[in-house]
Amino acid sequence: MTPPKTPPTSYGVLLYPGFEVLDVAGPIECLNTLTDELADSKLTLSVIGRPVDSDQGVQQVPAAVSPANPGSGPPERPTPTDGFRFQSAQVYQPTHTFDTAPPLDVLIIGGGWGSLPTDKVAPEMAFLARTFPSLRHLFTVCTGSAVAASAGVLDGLAATSNKAAWKQVTACGPRTRWVARARWVVSGKVWTSSGVSAGMDGMIAFLREQYAEEHYPGLIDRIANNMEYTYEADPSNDPFADVFGAQDVAPQGSDELS
Amino acid sequence: MTPPKTPPTSYGVLLYPGFEVLDVAGPIECLNTLTDELADSKLTLSVIGRPVDSDQGVQQVPAAVSPANPGSGPPERPTPTDGFRFQSAQVYQPTHTFDTAPPLDVLIIGGGWGSLPTDKVAPEMAFLARTFPSLRHLFTVCTGSAVAASAGVLDGLAATSNKAAWKQVTACGPRTRWVARARWVVSGKVWTSSGVSAGMDGMIAFLREQYAEEHYPGLIDRIANNMEYTYEADPSNDPFADVFGAQDVAPQGSDELS
Repeated sequence: MTPPKTPPTSYGVLLYPGFEVLDVAGPIECLNTLTDELADSKLTLSVIGRPVDSDQGVQQVPAAVSPANPGSGPPERPTPTDGFRFQSAQVYQPTHTFDTAPPLDVLIIGGGWGSLPTDKVAPEMAFLARTFPSLRHLFTVCTGSAVAASAGVLDGLAATSNKAAWKQVTACGPRTRWVARARWVVSGKVWTSSGVSAGMDGMIAFLREQYAEEHYPGLIDRIANNMEYTYEADPSNDPFADVFGAQDVAPQGSDELS
Repeated sequence: MTPPKTPPTSYGVLLYPGFEVLDVAGPIECLNTLTDELADSKLTLSVIGRPVDSDQGVQQVPAAVSPANPGSGPPERPTPTDGFRFQSAQVYQPTHTFDTAPPLDVLIIGGGWGSLPTDKVAPEMAFLARTFPSLRHLFTVCTGSAVAASAGVLDGLAATSNKAAWKQVTACGPRTRWVARARWVVSGKVWTSSGVSAGMDGMIAFLREQYAEEHYPGLIDRIANNMEYTYEADPSNDPFADVFGAQDVAPQGSDELS
């Protein structure tokens, strides 16, 4: 029996204008359900968003699901209009700014229209670049890996991403090995999930590693059962690579065929 | 070819303290993705929450994922503690109160610890009872059907719900036929989904009915593909009824075996 690892306790999730709601809510649901099972686990979740100057008594601007600039979504998908995504109807309130966030074991970055092109999330990339060395793990979903790649933290690693936005994402990481047929990829301390719903399978796989079955018998099944979720346990079982014709991309300068 | 129906345009989602995040985010992700595909569809989403007296310049209290009174979850699940569910870390900001909500075609009610026992959501039940007659459809996820049953709007209908909280939920609806082995149930104008992640399958099924393939070819597949989600198309394929030992419950006074 291998000795148990000490699982991470301090989680953070980075929100920005135009994030994709399920990218964030799927993994967080897994963590919420984990806390149901480990009631004395002392887990914390910090929801981190951009600071604003405000007299409203709140320090953070709520991060809306709608992007700050509609019409700038990935070219592979239809161009949003003013009626796009219910405008400001989905607003999530951060608990911390970049400066007040506590030390984190795990940082979660979801994707969404607001992440591409990645210069729209320059403040978030600066936070990530600064925070990355002290993280135990970075966990991205969907085009969150484009944010990570543009911030330079995927250099020399393997990664995956949203398959519909594949070309735009992979162009953000010329020093990254991009794996097309993958529900998620683990490389170094970074977990990258494929698009949107894949974040749930990626997070369950992440928790399987953090809470090994031999030390936490039945825990992962209880989490999935309480979510009534039939998870994908095989990261290579990804039908969406073919749906969108995504192909592996080797790092620039590599001898491999891309 | 049957004539096309006019799909619903005004959606609302009801939040309350202690809602389950994926219950809401899963169906909303389906609707967000629908709007990507139908950019001129003029869909609206109202996020409806409790009003408060407040000097903070906002009319609504943000609905937190954590329940108002930890320790009162369903008896079938572990008792939450103070460390439960990251406390106030997940806060969602409503756009409307019960009094300012616009006329709705579809009202979505998710489940969560905060919904049981249902006297905790008395204001939401009053809103539902008042709104129900003018809705085209009510759509519940998880223990959201307990809220609907307690509000009296499931009387004489068939329904399903979260399988882990099955006994507690079905006791809320003595005049309802409760179907255990169901990912979702359609009865009258009411769609009820099973627990948590089942809301995605239920909402995709709902959209399949609203946007018939013959009139909107490929739309539903594009939505599922862009979510990178392999949906369950057969409502009777529900492994979680057996996992939790949930059994059908006939309405009181019926001749059926329960």
